[in-house]
Amino acid sequence: MKVALLGFGTVGQGVYDILINEYKHIEIKYVLVKHREKHLDISNLLADSFEQIVNDPEIKLVIETIGGIDPAYHYVKAALNHQKHVVTANKALISEYFDELRGLAKEKGVKLRYEASVGAGIQIIEPLFQIARFNHIYKIEGIINGSTNYILSKIFLEDMSLDEALKDAKSLGYIEEDPKDDLEGFDLARKIHILSMIAYQKPIDPKIIKRIPLTTITEEDIRKAKANHQMIKYVARSKNIDDQLEIVVEPAFVDLSHLYRKINYEENIITLYGKYHLKQSFIGQGAGRYPTASAIINDILNIIKQS
Amino acid sequence: MKVALLGFGTVGQGVYDILINEYKHIEIKYVLVKHREKHLDISNLLADSFEQIVNDPEIKLVIETIGGIDPAYHYVKAALNHQKHVVTANKALISEYFDELRGLAKEKGVKLRYEASVGAGIQIIEPLFQIARFNHIYKIEGIINGSTNYILSKIFLEDMSLDEALKDAKSLGYIEEDPKDDLEGFDLARKIHILSMIAYQKPIDPKIIKRIPLTTITEEDIRKAKANHQMIKYVARSKNIDDQLEIVVEPAFVDLSHLYRKINYEENIITLYGKYHLKQSFIGQGAGRYPTASAIINDILNIIKQS
Repeated sequence: MKVALLGFGTVGQGVYDILINEYKHIEIKYVLVKHREKHLDISNLLADSFEQIVNDPEIKLVIETIGGIDPAYHYVKAALNHQKHVVTANKALISEYFDELRGLAKEKGVKLRYEASVGAGIQIIEPLFQIARFNHIYKIEGIINGSTNYILSKIFLEDMSLDEALKDAKSLGYIEEDPKDDLEGFDLARKIHILSMIAYQKPIDPKIIKRIPLTTITEEDIRKAKANHQMIKYVARSKNIDDQLEIVVEPAFVDLSHLYRKINYEENIITLYGKYHLKQSFIGQGAGRYPTASAIINDILNIIKQS
Repeated sequence: MKVALLGFGTVGQGVYDILINEYKHIEIKYVLVKHREKHLDISNLLADSFEQIVNDPEIKLVIETIGGIDPAYHYVKAALNHQKHVVTANKALISEYFDELRGLAKEKGVKLRYEASVGAGIQIIEPLFQIARFNHIYKIEGIINGSTNYILSKIFLEDMSLDEALKDAKSLGYIEEDPKDDLEGFDLARKIHILSMIAYQKPIDPKIIKRIPLTTITEEDIRKAKANHQMIKYVARSKNIDDQLEIVVEPAFVDLSHLYRKINYEENIITLYGKYHLKQSFIGQGAGRYPTASAIINDILNIIKQS
């Protein structure tokens, strides 16, 4: 099987490494990058343009690790239209175009998979589809952003100030290019949006999501929390009871006894409540090159197995 | 699709309920029970004998919820030999005949699924197969027995004595017929055996499992643990490093800071360590009618989807 990799950042390089080390029979024929001069070590793989990839009938599967809407949306749509399977880690794309892209993949008879779009290294999308079939899921809760959980862990476990923690996270590349995505909760909103649409099996207008930025917390809030043996966690919650839908992203004070106290730094957790299974939680790395790439590789292998 | 249900105890009735409520197109044609006189409410479904089921070409799938080796082993083998798919929650059977039964299913071109055999309501078997493909899993740890975790939670969270907690668990039916299975760790040994064979992708002689009964703990151990702000948890651990295999079931002292402190009563946890995904934990109900039945239903639906 010959595949093309769009983007060669943290995650794209992780996918490349795992395929090279573990799956020699899956050949990366092209890598598409913005700045060719930065990637001379893989110059034999660099595509001239996206058109070269999409028009090559040998390419059966496209892996999108660029992120953001533009040009990823155009690329993913074109790949599906050319009947190529697509694996993506792009939560912005999946959140915004969930129905359209899934519909297009179905129409073209190819697979669209996005396990890495929520919870990075946590296997959640496929299990959620399965659990949702008959469990009447009515609640989803979680810590689903590695960057903000890292910052809050630095503040509450290592006594850093908010400013110091932010600087530390930036220096390690844990905060994405646009810090608003993490700090104002857009990233969490997209992820809980995707989880909710799968769990409740219906389209959801993202405008109904109530989003309180993490930046609303003050040094005074932090002092108070510490004095009360609490931690602040940045959480996403979604409820669908009697068809009343409520989705919130907000900073929350968490007592000593709560499971969330054990979910720190880049770790994420997602808990699903349903009629028969009662409650299941999934914990794993919410960020990082190899955990995210691992989820993408699982998607690729599942597509190959099914096709 | 017409199916047969072997056994109508806690789990079997849960499977029956979910199928009746959620999947009217999956028809339970037969239920096989030991004592027909106890099940007059479903007398129209009661099979005369196992032979009636296995010789009925309309039956495409057999659900085994009897437990134990005899007669479950004979039934499952006969069903596979008659090219019927099998779904089972039977850890004793899967632990002991893992290779034989999987081989037989493959040979006959039918599916054998056993998601409920480990962790009851936790989806772990299928994700583990997927993660194990390339993640080089080297360690598995967990609390994988709901009954003993319930007893220990009663002792440490509600200050019951060991004797009181045992009586309480028995009165609720949380301890299986043969209490040795839970209290002496046979149940945990079977489950960690199954997980290890899947994770390390090789046959494992169950004799290498070091099994310390929970009954080795004393009231003095409990007093000491409480004095040190510790809890005792009954845990299973498995390591496969440089092809050195080590599998242990043992009571363990757990400090305040440990994630296991939040896993109480019937809840179970399984943590997988691997090369790329790094670490993933799965938490859910380790016992109970509907969580266990929910895993069985997922297996049934996956078989129907694939066939």
